[in-house]
Amino acid sequence: MIDKLIDKIKKTGAPIVVGLDPMMKFVPEHILKLAFEAKGETLDGAAEAVWLYNKEIIDKTYDLIPAVKPQIAMYEQFGIAGLMAFKKTVDYCKEKGLVVIGDVKRGDIGSTSEAYAAAHLGRVKVGNETYAGFDEDFATVNPYLGSDGIQPFINVCKEEKKGIFILVKTSNPSSGEFQDRLVKDADTERPLYEIVGEKVAEWGGQLIGVNGYSSVGAVVGATYPEQGRILRKLMPKTFILVPGYGAQGGKGKDLIHFFDDNRLGAIINSSRGIIAAYQNEKYEKFGALNFADASRQAVIDMIEDINQAFESAGK
Amino acid sequence: MIDKLIDKIKKTGAPIVVGLDPMMKFVPEHILKLAFEAKGETLDGAAEAVWLYNKEIIDKTYDLIPAVKPQIAMYEQFGIAGLMAFKKTVDYCKEKGLVVIGDVKRGDIGSTSEAYAAAHLGRVKVGNETYAGFDEDFATVNPYLGSDGIQPFINVCKEEKKGIFILVKTSNPSSGEFQDRLVKDADTERPLYEIVGEKVAEWGGQLIGVNGYSSVGAVVGATYPEQGRILRKLMPKTFILVPGYGAQGGKGKDLIHFFDDNRLGAIINSSRGIIAAYQNEKYEKFGALNFADASRQAVIDMIEDINQAFESAGK
Repeated sequence: MIDKLIDKIKKTGAPIVVGLDPMMKFVPEHILKLAFEAKGETLDGAAEAVWLYNKEIIDKTYDLIPAVKPQIAMYEQFGIAGLMAFKKTVDYCKEKGLVVIGDVKRGDIGSTSEAYAAAHLGRVKVGNETYAGFDEDFATVNPYLGSDGIQPFINVCKEEKKGIFILVKTSNPSSGEFQDRLVKDADTERPLYEIVGEKVAEWGGQLIGVNGYSSVGAVVGATYPEQGRILRKLMPKTFILVPGYGAQGGKGKDLIHFFDDNRLGAIINSSRGIIAAYQNEKYEKFGALNFADASRQAVIDMIEDINQAFESAGK
Repeated sequence: MIDKLIDKIKKTGAPIVVGLDPMMKFVPEHILKLAFEAKGETLDGAAEAVWLYNKEIIDKTYDLIPAVKPQIAMYEQFGIAGLMAFKKTVDYCKEKGLVVIGDVKRGDIGSTSEAYAAAHLGRVKVGNETYAGFDEDFATVNPYLGSDGIQPFINVCKEEKKGIFILVKTSNPSSGEFQDRLVKDADTERPLYEIVGEKVAEWGGQLIGVNGYSSVGAVVGATYPEQGRILRKLMPKTFILVPGYGAQGGKGKDLIHFFDDNRLGAIINSSRGIIAAYQNEKYEKFGALNFADASRQAVIDMIEDINQAFESAGK
């Protein structure tokens, strides 16, 4: 799957992913009205609003971008109806040719991780039939439980030609609480995220694609550039999913170290900076009715920001 | 919510929780047949099988036990239909007066953790209405992202009188890969799980119940008794959810150190040892048709095993 993602990045010239994390406060009034008129002020109504909102953003951006990353929590909060909107979004993005990274941060052990892997990347057997539950292309995975938790995902990735991104160093302020703790390692001491990063590189050895990168990727936040540089070197064949661009503070020039000389090796996520662009002063001229045009412009600006950073850096 | 759980444990005299982790290979033929005749060999059919199987086990055990722990991965693998069976199971268990621990191992940052907390423990606002998505009593949570990931859950627990169990030392063979790494701490070195355990105790200070235990609990596997003893002392007010009894190797006498002198402080989970008891040689006389009677007997035996261990230990 990493090769498909890389091909899409090359075709679009855009190493970015749009985070489809639809919070209700982002959804314009006219969409809410439509959805509530159709389905009431119910969980179904909320799910309909989320779907209508997503669809318009996807329609206005899919030709510019390689991938989307729906954050399942934003759907799960609306229960079954919300998860139906998640599934509808995944399916629609795949129809549009986008690579779908399910930001699900699952992780458990043994047969339970197998079930999560089947749910999001694989298939289940029912009698003599097989079905896919959610069928994303990639899923994000939490490493806290160790190899037992990760290997079942990798096995499914092999069978189904899918991929994962494993949390290594997250973008949030308190990510250092455990991830930065200095761990005894042979004669020296290194932060836990380095230990996890090395393990991700090792796991990834099982799934190297024709482009030299593995379908076992890592999540490293934009907000910690020093740590990002170290991890880039420690995991040379690991594709890095980088959250924290824009709203969380990262800019293109701060992220250039994640990329190789072919402008590959990383994919930068922006969520609210794109999907809620119309609420940003910079794009307010579009107005709430044209929220998806504002998103399109924000995508164009983000691509330009990153490409300028490449040029400044001589990449 | 911890007080409600403790009251139920006192009433039943059973510090145990039944893990409702319905793998298809556990579901008896006659249940599969019923479900597939009604809904076909489809995801709906699989979900119906899971629901019929769960219902019979719940009906035959709910009077003996304080709580159940459905593992959401086992439902999520069947997509939307599976999650509908999860919700139906949660609702039915609550109707029967059981405390429901959603084993969801969610964890993310900021507004995303807020959304997960709303999904599983809280409510969402839709227009002028509020709704609960899945509405379990407790949820399990992954600590890798630090306080940013945990505090939103605690906030919802305060508002809704719910609880969480945070992964500290998991029961799987590779749990030591990261959790046992020695971390520099002031002048000494201690394993990561101790650092996480101390943090859990600190977070828990916000939610101490009338019984002296916090609604912020911990998950510590039965399979690591030494580590369990250390964590019990480090987290004196933390209620401990202990997986790994039975099928994973733990026995009552190996778990006694988790409990205080009032036989409180921990709740021991058994999943396949109870729900698939009829497949175990010890209970095969019940036969597949009476699978839920085998589950009832396995619950009785588990309670007796733990109570004997209490008596041997003079607790």
